[in-house]
Amino acid sequence: MRGVMGIDKRKKVSCVLKKTPPPAVILAAGMGSRLRKRNGGIPKPLTRYLGLTLLERAIKTCMRAGIREFYVVVGYKKEMVKKHVEELKKKYRVPIEVIENPNWERGNGTSVLAALRRLKKPFILLMCDHVFDPEIVKTFVERAMESGTSLLAVDPRKDWVFDLEDATKVKLRGDNIVDIGKELENFNGIDMGLFYCLPDFTIALEEAAEEGEYSLSAGVRFLAGKKRIKAVKMDGRMWFDLDTPESIDHARKVVLESISTKGEDGYISRFLNRKISTRISGWLVNTRITPNTISVISFVIALAGAFLFGVKGYLWTLFAGILVQLASIVDGCDGEIARLRMQSSRFGAWFDTLLDRYADMAIALGVTYGYWLVNPHPLAWIGCAVAVTGFILASYTRKEYALRYGVPIPSGPFDKLTKRDLRLFGIFLGAIFNRPFLAMVILGGISHIYILSRLVSTYVSGREFQG
Amino acid sequence: MRGVMGIDKRKKVSCVLKKTPPPAVILAAGMGSRLRKRNGGIPKPLTRYLGLTLLERAIKTCMRAGIREFYVVVGYKKEMVKKHVEELKKKYRVPIEVIENPNWERGNGTSVLAALRRLKKPFILLMCDHVFDPEIVKTFVERAMESGTSLLAVDPRKDWVFDLEDATKVKLRGDNIVDIGKELENFNGIDMGLFYCLPDFTIALEEAAEEGEYSLSAGVRFLAGKKRIKAVKMDGRMWFDLDTPESIDHARKVVLESISTKGEDGYISRFLNRKISTRISGWLVNTRITPNTISVISFVIALAGAFLFGVKGYLWTLFAGILVQLASIVDGCDGEIARLRMQSSRFGAWFDTLLDRYADMAIALGVTYGYWLVNPHPLAWIGCAVAVTGFILASYTRKEYALRYGVPIPSGPFDKLTKRDLRLFGIFLGAIFNRPFLAMVILGGISHIYILSRLVSTYVSGREFQG
Repeated sequence: MRGVMGIDKRKKVSCVLKKTPPPAVILAAGMGSRLRKRNGGIPKPLTRYLGLTLLERAIKTCMRAGIREFYVVVGYKKEMVKKHVEELKKKYRVPIEVIENPNWERGNGTSVLAALRRLKKPFILLMCDHVFDPEIVKTFVERAMESGTSLLAVDPRKDWVFDLEDATKVKLRGDNIVDIGKELENFNGIDMGLFYCLPDFTIALEEAAEEGEYSLSAGVRFLAGKKRIKAVKMDGRMWFDLDTPESIDHARKVVLESISTKGEDGYISRFLNRKISTRISGWLVNTRITPNTISVISFVIALAGAFLFGVKGYLWTLFAGILVQLASIVDGCDGEIARLRMQSSRFGAWFDTLLDRYADMAIALGVTYGYWLVNPHPLAWIGCAVAVTGFILASYTRKEYALRYGVPIPSGPFDKLTKRDLRLFGIFLGAIFNRPFLAMVILGGISHIYILSRLVSTYVSGREFQG
Repeated sequence: MRGVMGIDKRKKVSCVLKKTPPPAVILAAGMGSRLRKRNGGIPKPLTRYLGLTLLERAIKTCMRAGIREFYVVVGYKKEMVKKHVEELKKKYRVPIEVIENPNWERGNGTSVLAALRRLKKPFILLMCDHVFDPEIVKTFVERAMESGTSLLAVDPRKDWVFDLEDATKVKLRGDNIVDIGKELENFNGIDMGLFYCLPDFTIALEEAAEEGEYSLSAGVRFLAGKKRIKAVKMDGRMWFDLDTPESIDHARKVVLESISTKGEDGYISRFLNRKISTRISGWLVNTRITPNTISVISFVIALAGAFLFGVKGYLWTLFAGILVQLASIVDGCDGEIARLRMQSSRFGAWFDTLLDRYADMAIALGVTYGYWLVNPHPLAWIGCAVAVTGFILASYTRKEYALRYGVPIPSGPFDKLTKRDLRLFGIFLGAIFNRPFLAMVILGGISHIYILSRLVSTYVSGREFQG
């Protein structure tokens, strides 16, 4: 199951000037000493997190924000990182230039300076060990494109950060940065490690360096004093600073728990399937298995269930029901993994939807065949065809409405009762009570009532085009 | 069957300034002497043409172009026309003001003068006895909103006009009007009776009147001499000047022959069904029957066919096949009548589509039941469910694709073979040869191959979102 209907939510009258986003500089020079134990010497940018290396995730996140030009500052184990950059260049077909920083051990300010000297134009700056909900970077880039000063993304939520003690704190007044540093006692925001750097950052970092300070924060403090940098408050979305094994475990846990397609999930999906599927996804995300393969696996499990429904005997029926419910759970994993790895695709979502429809047909045929073996009356088959039609047409109606009216169908009392999670769970329950056919017919009936109710309510609400 | 998927063809980046279109002035003052014989004294604006009075059609056409303010100039039998205006005001909930022209008998220039004196701002001017493809008026209004001079719509096609002798001819050089009049020998365009009038039209008409000329053309000639009016060439779309019974018959004929949903029609629809359905529509369009009612009638005919397929005996099967093909033909009428009467609605199209899906299910059940009576094997029913699923999923796949990719699914070799017109004709042919079940299974199989081919070709073409 994958959510997100491809509905165009743009306003009817829009006026967009298409500017090119600035390039992104990704800091990947540090050693990541606290991660080294677990990593066995792999440099930090190559650390895998939810199926992607940190560097790959940083690049994909920026690409979602429209960025198409990359610079990666390397230092520690630079040959390994450079090799990985070459792989990413090929994979995503975007220009990624390597900037070497021989002074990386002094502090991350030196890496930024190296980038400033190379680029001589504004850029987005991010640390490769900070992972962001893509929407954060997207919003930040939009703000950057309109900004006349450098910017720093700041999270006002103190309780969001896993290791507050180690976080860089920021004291804000409005969107002015009053102070910044790890040791601040009095602060009201956390440095998210996401910057927009104008060329005047160079002077700031050079000044700080003259005083023997080589951190990026020192440069920010200098700029802040001259009101040449502003804070952009980012609230409500997820980001993580992954500098210890514990923080990685924490981030994984939080992300997996929140991976459901909000609002679109049915009851069973939300309260049962997701609990299990997210565990499976957490394990599968680090394998090479693709979301489309998982769609096929879920389909095959459903087919096996369908087949067993056609075999006489309660135990087979029960087993078939379990398989069907298992297929329903696994069907959650394709979308989860696609989202975790930022691999979502329109084709994948379509492929998954189509397999779901075929699986539903197969299950209905299996259930009916099993029933017909005991009650050989043609009405059983007519019930089967009517139920299958209901299952498919419920989904069909949602698409039809979205296509014709340009907005999702308004949800009604029957809405969540006609979703696939509940349908398959209903058949599973039916199997437990040895009445899968009855369950199927009831669910089919509900689907038809749903379709009729949507039709009538649309007619009554007069969403008619009179012209 | 109704065409036109609700796909948004707007470009991704658009920049639209929303200006209000000018008001429309509709000339409805003349007597229409040459129509009087047929009409039995009904004034011209109240003449019915394809289910609407000429005045109603003029207003609906302008509403499609975004116009929301109307003025109707009346003269001959003004009380009857005024009463009709009141009805239209209520029906369409738009302001329509009546302007009385006591001098209507002198010439149509006097009616325009009456409007100019009342409005004192630019307006679109049309004759109520000219009917236009709504796109003509839409394009003209868009041009008018950007124009600094008055405009006249001119059709360069001399052979388009039914009664060339009586038409007002125009001689153009570029978009300058060199001469205008009914008697012109040397001309390269036809006055379409659609104007954009700036206030300087007043002087032109008054000057012409002083010379004893009370026609609109005289005013245009005056303005053209001062280069204060330009021609807008309109080509390739339909419009008609309905001033004689013969011209009305001609227009009806041309419109009905071209009413098919271009490009979207399947083979059977195009070469068989439309030939019959347009005749039925031409007759039904003047009744009070609504397109939705016709959708229901087609559905009921299909249900009757489905039922008869379940009765043993070749004659019943043949009769059932004929009913199914009849349902397919009648299914064309709802959309035709909706388009003829400018009544198309998103709800209607959705309602029709859904009824089609249910009718297909019923037909498949009937066909299978009839087959099963002779060959009582469960495989028959499995074939039924698979075929129905194929029928619905072929349509489902088209919607799914349109929704996810924002464009219609690319048509392939199987495309037109999976449309409903061919499906029902195939079952009709099957019935003739007493093999409706075989026909259904083959058609179902084609549908599944189509779905698979669309999926594979999309995957291969790499319309994948990589981000």
